[in-house]
Amino acid sequence: MTATDVTLPELRLDCGACLHDVVQHVEIDGDPQRDNLILIPHALTGSARVREWWPAIAGAPGALFDPQRCCVVGINALGSCYGSSGPRDAADFAPITVADMVRAQALALERLGFSRFALAIGGSLGGMQALQWALDFPERVGHAIVVAAHDHHSAMGVALNGLQREAIALDSVRGLRLARKLAVLTYKSDALLAARHDRRPDRHGRAGFDVEGYLEAQAERFVGRMDASTYAVLTSAMDSFDVRRHRPRATPPPIDFVGISGDWLFRPADVRAAAARLAARECSSAYTEFESDHGHDAFLAEAPRLAQLLRAILARRDACSGAFVKPAPDGRGDQIVLDRMQVR
Amino acid sequence: MTATDVTLPELRLDCGACLHDVVQHVEIDGDPQRDNLILIPHALTGSARVREWWPAIAGAPGALFDPQRCCVVGINALGSCYGSSGPRDAADFAPITVADMVRAQALALERLGFSRFALAIGGSLGGMQALQWALDFPERVGHAIVVAAHDHHSAMGVALNGLQREAIALDSVRGLRLARKLAVLTYKSDALLAARHDRRPDRHGRAGFDVEGYLEAQAERFVGRMDASTYAVLTSAMDSFDVRRHRPRATPPPIDFVGISGDWLFRPADVRAAAARLAARECSSAYTEFESDHGHDAFLAEAPRLAQLLRAILARRDACSGAFVKPAPDGRGDQIVLDRMQVR
Repeated sequence: MTATDVTLPELRLDCGACLHDVVQHVEIDGDPQRDNLILIPHALTGSARVREWWPAIAGAPGALFDPQRCCVVGINALGSCYGSSGPRDAADFAPITVADMVRAQALALERLGFSRFALAIGGSLGGMQALQWALDFPERVGHAIVVAAHDHHSAMGVALNGLQREAIALDSVRGLRLARKLAVLTYKSDALLAARHDRRPDRHGRAGFDVEGYLEAQAERFVGRMDASTYAVLTSAMDSFDVRRHRPRATPPPIDFVGISGDWLFRPADVRAAAARLAARECSSAYTEFESDHGHDAFLAEAPRLAQLLRAILARRDACSGAFVKPAPDGRGDQIVLDRMQVR
Repeated sequence: MTATDVTLPELRLDCGACLHDVVQHVEIDGDPQRDNLILIPHALTGSARVREWWPAIAGAPGALFDPQRCCVVGINALGSCYGSSGPRDAADFAPITVADMVRAQALALERLGFSRFALAIGGSLGGMQALQWALDFPERVGHAIVVAAHDHHSAMGVALNGLQREAIALDSVRGLRLARKLAVLTYKSDALLAARHDRRPDRHGRAGFDVEGYLEAQAERFVGRMDASTYAVLTSAMDSFDVRRHRPRATPPPIDFVGISGDWLFRPADVRAAAARLAARECSSAYTEFESDHGHDAFLAEAPRLAQLLRAILARRDACSGAFVKPAPDGRGDQIVLDRMQVR
């Protein structure tokens, strides 16, 4: 495992502003070769340390991407407090977009000699970045997998992020706690909360319902690891995301979308529609549904099962298009719903 | 139309506290007779003036319940700032439950000589009250219709209400605005927001997205008509609601549940399950689904269409059980999905 920081002397943003001396933290797991690089951008509160938040996909023994065979590249998103320049460095940090994040990553990774990735894959904001990579740098990505995200942030998503920033504006600490609680609710399904907490009193004997105690614990952990201004900048970047009218310079690589059945923040119907929109634009795009009651969080909470589905997607692409990144073998493939949309 | 206030000298609450000189505001529309009384409790921010918030059901010309034939009784919920004793009268106002609301209503309406209602009907918190009436006063209600509510407030509902009270605790004015915005989002469907606002900039030229401008306008109207402490008390009463293990003193009247297809706060699957639970307890219970993309708010926003469905439910009960309140006639009955569950 190698960790390194790259400093970009200058980065032009979509808003017109120019950032100087932009730091990008990169973590590399495996032996980089010409055709084995897997790029994994992170979600809203993740980091370049993919093995910490997605061990079943990359990092743990038996993970989908085995460092003996692949080289996993994690890179911190611009603006994040886990190793990139952001609003903690400058109070007037300019508004950024997902395209800005990806441009910074492309520049930083080029400096490290990583000119082309066999695959870019991510979930949620990480999925938005994987898609933006495929559209903005089609020659540098062989395949993209977009999990629990689609081609724009929805009106509901935008509104919910706005309320979270409004809470932070009321009180940077207590408001950040409130924002996290709201976000956690959007990541969980009604069914999961009913099964786990129903209407039981808090299991730790504090006042209120068990679901409230759970949210309290989530908020407590969160304020110790996240900065309010960073959170505001990153959620605004999510809100800016809309590539429905994006016209790539060249034909994008194959793009697989994975929707989560119980996700109400990035609804599977919207993920499917995004795949169809790309397919209608002569892009090799497919939709697969991951059956999970967990909600949006399933891409993390059920990563071992997700890894099986991703293995099948990779095998399908391999069968369709010849040479391709081969995941580590795994005999099991049950509980997978595939081919709700045909690969073109 | 007659408006009157009833004062109850004493009201014992579920929490053990005793309230004194409890005021209940009542509005009566129509000529009360032995068998024509329709009780319509209101939702979270409604009032006894049913004709103002549910004109297609009661009050407007051609409404489902015609004052020429029926007598509609609206009564303010205990704790509400629209005509009942509540936390504005006493800073230490005790926590109340839906059963407390209904007990206060039963006492107040008895004093007015209203001993029995042909029908109790309501949506959301009003539906919870209609159900509580049927279970607690089975001899005083001939039929109950529960719209967009079921037999308990869900873990998700409880958590979302808790966050709204947390916002109010941060700042009673700005927090109430934030609470209202969050509540409005829970009342709307993702599909409706996408169709109405998508990702367009605010139509009034203010900063942000159109959906944010809409929420801002909703919040602005709300703080002019609602009090933060009232809102906290009423949402807590909702959170207390759970009659899944309620054992009525006598067989309850027929109970019809109406779920809204696009409702994610009171999910149709949960409404259906509540009907099935009651049916399993030898109660004449049925479920009907109202197809609407509006979300929870459909019981208000699409009240004219809802009235058609209610007309069909009333006609079905009439055909099954003989004499019954007959709604005003209306030839149209299309767009209605009925009989997803058989009437027992």
